[in-house]
This record gives sequence, structure tokens and C-alpha cells, in this order.
Amino acid sequence: MTDAEMALAANEEFYRAFAQGDLMAMDTLWSGDDDVTCIHPGWDILGDRYSVLQSWQSILAAPPPVECRNARVRMSGNVAVVICDEVIVGDALAATNVYVLEEDGWKICHHHASQILAAVRDPVAPQAANDPSPSIH
Amino acid sequence: MTDAEMALAANEEFYRAFAQGDLMAMDTLWSGDDDVTCIHPGWDILGDRYSVLQSWQSILAAPPPVECRNARVRMSGNVAVVICDEVIVGDALAATNVYVLEEDGWKICHHHASQILAAVRDPVAPQAANDPSPSIH
Repeated sequence: MTDAEMALAANEEFYRAFAQGDLMAMDTLWSGDDDVTCIHPGWDILGDRYSVLQSWQSILAAPPPVECRNARVRMSGNVAVVICDEVIVGDALAATNVYVLEEDGWKICHHHASQILAAVRDPVAPQAANDPSPSIH
Repeated sequence: MTDAEMALAANEEFYRAFAQGDLMAMDTLWSGDDDVTCIHPGWDILGDRYSVLQSWQSILAAPPPVECRNARVRMSGNVAVVICDEVIVGDALAATNVYVLEEDGWKICHHHASQILAAVRDPVAPQAANDPSPSIH
């Protein structure tokens, strides 16, 4: 597997853990650094590992049936920036996930998700919303 | 200047161009790559340079008095991930800006901004909202 494929695989695992409420996997997926960051939809910035994992513990207690679609990755050395859609029961969100290559694989160090307003979804959506295949560029 | 300081300076220039409606500077600040991406608050993902710059042309026709606060940067090789607050006339937003080092300096290749709901601002805000000084870690 290429680095890009491994980063996209880490992103798929992130959404599997998210959808299945797998907190142990989520903990392992995040970088061990204390300066990880996370911006949930409508939330302020969480700026340390404890706050980030605490937020996931809360969210994963009742995990939503989230699906990741249209993931594409920009690689640059040991950093992978993955942009994707999140679909949660008809709601559409846009996500930025940043992965870094650490000793035990690609780890997420930043997550930012925001809701897409229904009114703007169609006019500004060049992607095929139903295409689940990842693209690498 | 260190790479981190130069990346933060590019981020400051990004917000100067944003607030002053300086489309020429905004065009220069963005990477020349076609695969740049941009997620405005509530918007879908814009996934090519033409769409991204077209969106900025529209926004900068009536630029909001945006202020960048609490910028912090994560460096990894030729990539800088800047996380910051955006304040627009009392509204608070959270932003992710990814910069890459190109031949003519640090260029933005991804912008993601989302509104912070007032109801969650206080309970989850560990940062000092009034501290304009950037931090590097």
C-alpha cells in the first residue's frame, strides 16, 4: 500500500470507530501528542488530547450512523490531509482530517467537521454525492 | 524567521486580505495547485482552484471585518496546519488553514471555517478569547 492508501485506510478506520462507538479504537487512532486538536460541528476548538478524547467518549456513548463519502487525500511527506463528506441520517457535513505518520502508523492529529446547510448543498456541490470511492491526488 | 513564524505570517496575511477584500493578494496567497480545497461556513466542499477563487471573489466583494485570534501552528516538514478563531462582528468561528511551502513561500492549500454555536462557546473554550498572540507548539 502507498502512504496515500494507508492514510485513507486510517480515515476509514476512524469512521468505523466513530459509527460503531469504538472508543478504544478511537483512542488508538489519535496521535499520542498532547497538542492534537478537534472542532466538532458547532463546537469551539478543543486543544489538548484529554479534551479531545473526552469529547469522543461523550459522542461515542450514543454513536450516530455516520458514513464517510468522497474521501480525497493530499499527501506531503509525513502529513496527509483528508477531505471528505460525512452523512448522518440525511444530514450532510464536510470534514477535514489531518493524519501524521508516527512509529505505529498514520494517526489523526486534527479533526474538523461542519454541517452543510441544505440551501447551499446543491449549487456548490461539484462532487458526486453518491460516489463512495476515494480519490487520491 | 522560523518556518512556523513564516507560516503564521502567511496566516496573518490571509486574514488581512480577507478583511480588506484584497482579491489579488488572496489569489497570490493560495497555492497554484488545482487541487486546493475550501469549506466556507455552512458550505459544501469546493475542490478546485477555480471554484475556490470564485468563492473568494464573491465574498471579498463585501468583505466582513474578520479578525483572527489565538492562532497556533503544527509544523511537519513542508506543511503547516494553523488552527485559529475567527471573530466577525461578535460571531465566533473556528478555522483550519493548511499551508504548504512552495517556491515562492508558504501558500494556503485548504481552508475550513465553521460557526461556533453560542450555546457551546463557554463550556468548551479553554482558550483565552481575548488573547491575540499566536502560540507555536
